[in-house]
Amino acid sequence: MNGYRDLRVALLGCGSVGAQVARLILEHGDELAARIGARLTLSGIAVRNLDSPRDVELPRELFTTDAERLVQGADIVIELMGGIEPARALITQALQGGADVVTANKALLAEHGPELFEAAEQVGAQLSYEAAVAAAIPILRPLRESLAGDHITRVMGIVNGSTNYILDRMDRFGDSAEDAARVASELGFLEADPTLDVEGYDAAQKATILASIAFHTEVPVDAVHREGITGITAAQVEAAKSAGYVIKLLAIAERITSSDGVDGVSARVYPALIRRDHPLAAVHEGKNAVFVEAEAAGELMFYGAGAGGAETASAVLGDLVSAARRHVVGGPGIAGSLHAELPILPVGEVNTAYQIMLDVRDEPGVLAAIAGVLAEHGVSAASVEQSVAQGGGARASLVIGTHVAREADLAATVDALRTADRVLSVTSVLRLEGAE
Amino acid sequence: MNGYRDLRVALLGCGSVGAQVARLILEHGDELAARIGARLTLSGIAVRNLDSPRDVELPRELFTTDAERLVQGADIVIELMGGIEPARALITQALQGGADVVTANKALLAEHGPELFEAAEQVGAQLSYEAAVAAAIPILRPLRESLAGDHITRVMGIVNGSTNYILDRMDRFGDSAEDAARVASELGFLEADPTLDVEGYDAAQKATILASIAFHTEVPVDAVHREGITGITAAQVEAAKSAGYVIKLLAIAERITSSDGVDGVSARVYPALIRRDHPLAAVHEGKNAVFVEAEAAGELMFYGAGAGGAETASAVLGDLVSAARRHVVGGPGIAGSLHAELPILPVGEVNTAYQIMLDVRDEPGVLAAIAGVLAEHGVSAASVEQSVAQGGGARASLVIGTHVAREADLAATVDALRTADRVLSVTSVLRLEGAE
Repeated sequence: MNGYRDLRVALLGCGSVGAQVARLILEHGDELAARIGARLTLSGIAVRNLDSPRDVELPRELFTTDAERLVQGADIVIELMGGIEPARALITQALQGGADVVTANKALLAEHGPELFEAAEQVGAQLSYEAAVAAAIPILRPLRESLAGDHITRVMGIVNGSTNYILDRMDRFGDSAEDAARVASELGFLEADPTLDVEGYDAAQKATILASIAFHTEVPVDAVHREGITGITAAQVEAAKSAGYVIKLLAIAERITSSDGVDGVSARVYPALIRRDHPLAAVHEGKNAVFVEAEAAGELMFYGAGAGGAETASAVLGDLVSAARRHVVGGPGIAGSLHAELPILPVGEVNTAYQIMLDVRDEPGVLAAIAGVLAEHGVSAASVEQSVAQGGGARASLVIGTHVAREADLAATVDALRTADRVLSVTSVLRLEGAE
Repeated sequence: MNGYRDLRVALLGCGSVGAQVARLILEHGDELAARIGARLTLSGIAVRNLDSPRDVELPRELFTTDAERLVQGADIVIELMGGIEPARALITQALQGGADVVTANKALLAEHGPELFEAAEQVGAQLSYEAAVAAAIPILRPLRESLAGDHITRVMGIVNGSTNYILDRMDRFGDSAEDAARVASELGFLEADPTLDVEGYDAAQKATILASIAFHTEVPVDAVHREGITGITAAQVEAAKSAGYVIKLLAIAERITSSDGVDGVSARVYPALIRRDHPLAAVHEGKNAVFVEAEAAGELMFYGAGAGGAETASAVLGDLVSAARRHVVGGPGIAGSLHAELPILPVGEVNTAYQIMLDVRDEPGVLAAIAGVLAEHGVSAASVEQSVAQGGGARASLVIGTHVAREADLAATVDALRTADRVLSVTSVLRLEGAE
């Protein structure tokens, strides 16, 4: 068409996302060529098994099992195999050969991002990965480019659709944790081994990517404080609901200053209470959203599908067009930028608020005793509610909402409450985010 | 610092946005230089009156009244004067001289976008205007770049903060239209002449910009079907609420196919009912949000501040960094892309649903008569509700929700109902959007 030059695109992997990417490249060829100023030629699709069934009917001659050879002749390599190897070796090979790389491989980026960014930078190639966080939602490009003149202070995302589906069912339909997980599993929201999702590993990988882009700092996935949703009970969800909150699993990347004055970054994943009128509270089912706070821009939110073959393919195509345009117009590629090198601070240095539920002996002086424990740790109560006594007159249930304080002090307060006089048990501890 | 080259930035206008832009350039100089690879030098600020008070204290020697001269030596010109002239002449001068231009001037873009895009393209300069729609929210760049490999089918935005503030007060506090407008005015949400906001002119300007970016087609502002919020009553808001809806002023840009098979674009602004669980329903006060539907990506939403000096300045700075990086790395600039040249179709060709409220004589056969009128026009009812009779037994109030149909048929249905037997009056007609 119109004498456009050709750009050879090698696709590695042909699962639900890869098949859609191949379809879009083939079906929208003319339109993509008009937007790019060059024609994309799908030079091949590397797969493990030539005979596996595909979501989309694709020309058989495109398939190959020789990924290494396919990468050799490519201008742009799209890696959608997942996993660490051979994805890492193939991406490195591609970048070293000067090809641009588009990937959705969050695990690989979380583990080996810096070395891949460096490989890209050495040859001026581009490594882009919009689809690695929150699938279809354009979030990495806006963070990097649209907010390039602003100071991002906090990024707070619902970035795992499976756990959001479970928590949303518990909240909206009153499901038990087990029932919600079973439905999620039946609908394909959960993997056979759900640990990656429910223990927050997947969200932690995305937190490292968000933190590194927002703060230009390498954030190893091991440095992300991680708590999953397996401890969340129907009773907690119900109590949250009646108090005007909803529980969401949040991946948070934040600029913080430690108690001894060190400016740094916190990256963490945990289930937390969000006020029901917060924009993140309206994120239902398997949807994702990323809430961003910046010094000048204020509060922004990006919302959309967090999974799905076609949805994720949309983000891959956006990166592909960007890489292809770079081949046409020139200029160095964009990879990671880790120039700020801020220290990663432990979760104890974070400022947050706690909601603590506890059963106490219903005696005179119990509130004073508890207030004393809080005061000892420099924590003050924003609210104290006494709920109906459970199973007889001798016990009462208390719900304490604290003011914002240092996480370490809040955690120490809870430890002290567990052994405090007249306290029978601490029944729930949840952080409250997005309030201030 | 570090031998970076200098880029000369000329700022035209120093209102609430301009003052913040100047502050950010001056205060964040080192950081911007690190991100750009060049140092931004604010070469001057053109104002009408050197002695006007400013929101931010700025070096007096930067100010000048000679905008033309300031533009001459600039690498990048930031236009924040507003209005058509002299902004248009100065931007044209800047582009013709090869400077990149960043502007937030939606009125100018809506009126003269195509000629400015052409001026930019002729010299390979960049014209960017992220701040012109929904202030701080990164929406234009994601539409253009992140979704570059996808097909956008509909863009639906709350893009005017003033009218959203009014409608939100009416919805949440039960204010009358007059009371809500008075509060909005007192809080500075409304201009002295509120016509631009409440009659939907401002939203229409933004609709042309959104439509032209989403569909690569020139959409003159006169081609935008426009209805304001002045006809919206407290009774309508209340009725919407009790039926599970909220009324929002929407700017809609949509790919549609006319009844005779022509593929084209619809751009329109009107108040419409949105289901309360739609993400746009949670956009309160003066906030903005843009809901995007794309073939592969599905539903996306971008949410944030729709006004404010610092907030708007954040978007201007994002464009400034992008333009400055282009000076460093080379490559042609991005301006408008109107290559698709789709026809603009009249509002009658749009598919939507109506909610029609009417007072009727409470007699046998009245429902059959009304159903007959609908059927004649090929419109079918999704729901019919009879509310409590008002002021005596002879009258009843009906609320009819239609299925999706052609706007022209729906409008004709309403016209026919007005004169139909047993119908006393049509008391409210509102479109229902975002349902399907």
